[in-house]
Amino acid sequence: MQNDNLLTPQQIEDYHRAGFVFQPGVLEASDIELLRREAERELAQDSPRRTVEAGTGLPYRVHGSHLNSDLFSRFVRHPKILGLARQLLNDDVYVHQFKVNKKRAFQGEIWRWHQDFMFWHNEDQMPEPRALTVAVFLDEVTEFNGPLIVVPEGHSEGLIPAAAKNEGWESTLTNDLKYSLENSERMQALVEQHGLVAPKGPRGSLLWFHCNIPHGSAQNMSPIDRSLLLLSYNAVSNALPTPSPRPEWLVGRDFAPLKPLEGTLIAPAA
Amino acid sequence: MQNDNLLTPQQIEDYHRAGFVFQPGVLEASDIELLRREAERELAQDSPRRTVEAGTGLPYRVHGSHLNSDLFSRFVRHPKILGLARQLLNDDVYVHQFKVNKKRAFQGEIWRWHQDFMFWHNEDQMPEPRALTVAVFLDEVTEFNGPLIVVPEGHSEGLIPAAAKNEGWESTLTNDLKYSLENSERMQALVEQHGLVAPKGPRGSLLWFHCNIPHGSAQNMSPIDRSLLLLSYNAVSNALPTPSPRPEWLVGRDFAPLKPLEGTLIAPAA
Repeated sequence: MQNDNLLTPQQIEDYHRAGFVFQPGVLEASDIELLRREAERELAQDSPRRTVEAGTGLPYRVHGSHLNSDLFSRFVRHPKILGLARQLLNDDVYVHQFKVNKKRAFQGEIWRWHQDFMFWHNEDQMPEPRALTVAVFLDEVTEFNGPLIVVPEGHSEGLIPAAAKNEGWESTLTNDLKYSLENSERMQALVEQHGLVAPKGPRGSLLWFHCNIPHGSAQNMSPIDRSLLLLSYNAVSNALPTPSPRPEWLVGRDFAPLKPLEGTLIAPAA
Repeated sequence: MQNDNLLTPQQIEDYHRAGFVFQPGVLEASDIELLRREAERELAQDSPRRTVEAGTGLPYRVHGSHLNSDLFSRFVRHPKILGLARQLLNDDVYVHQFKVNKKRAFQGEIWRWHQDFMFWHNEDQMPEPRALTVAVFLDEVTEFNGPLIVVPEGHSEGLIPAAAKNEGWESTLTNDLKYSLENSERMQALVEQHGLVAPKGPRGSLLWFHCNIPHGSAQNMSPIDRSLLLLSYNAVSNALPTPSPRPEWLVGRDFAPLKPLEGTLIAPAA
């Protein structure tokens, strides 16, 4: 694999201005099929890393799968991913979080407005907002299956005050989010100023977003699942100064710079 | 007021084929302002006809306001409304239900997939699906504030079996709907065949839909309220044969054919 997939200077500028950049359908169908199968395998495995839906009892999310799966441990170093994370963070990077996230057809529930850095700063003592997430679309994302919604330029004012709703880190895993913004006047003003955008596209699309971008997603009202991988990278120079109380499958402790993948997703270079 | 606003033969054909027809921005701004003020007045009045949100305790719905408000009692006879209800039902009509429905900014919750006729047939003994609803947009409806979503042609196969989740008519008023379709394979097949549509438009738009159209709406994720009036008309020849156990503010008992409004919304003809 050659890394001929870096972002253009315009895309990098867009990311810094708007706080997100969208690449529709850039991953190859064969890679997507591998990732889809592996995501289902992870969802099917009983594990404390897994969360189930309140309504159905069905698993919808798994954390830390890059520590459990060879395929995912290779994917976080994929040339269409890692090089771009390095471009956007302008540094070496490591994996702070990795999630399989399946918003199930007709069932998957609301994820309220929040900023990722609020959790990473308050719970994990991440020093600066020099981290990002790339959402990898494993299903087509439409207006009906609960697309991620972002506030363009919503990262520009930093953290929006949000009172903690509950104690302890376990509540950071529920959809009654510990820090959410639906009652924030500042959030409301930001949306009134900048509007909302919900990027939609085919399997294999990538949505990159800044850790201070307010985002959320509504219920999946459609018969199409909305499965994503959510890969969160942090700049190596922004590594956590003290151990987080949250477990390693939830918060990465391996701060070594990631090296680009050699070979393919399923086989090392010969 | 002259009734020069009837639907075209094409629109009537569309309604019968697809089960809905959308008229963007047809009501006048002055009428919309009157209706918006009256809706807020109804929402502010304590009444058993009013329902509050579980999360906030704020009122979001009022039933039977046409029995309590002169303006709304006139509005159900408005020439841009009544004549079209008569066209689509091909009969004289009366008001079966009238709702003020405010899906509040950032708060308003999911309304699960259902068919209105399931309630009207099972709870009220309405004989045939010869009834409809017109949703009057009191706010702009966008992809983010919980638009009504319909399944085009989803009315064509009649009622979709749905087991009652709970007993008694009071549960027909909650958003844990007594009859809902999110677990129905037939519903899923219908959507896979016909897709989904969420009509969006400015204040004063009208969305007409058949009482057997599966419909629902997701959370309001935006800072814009999504207030609607929902006027449900039944054909006079399809009036209820026996008294419904549900109260009159929930189920109309006056089967007299409605006569077109003379004069304006606020003043009778001189």
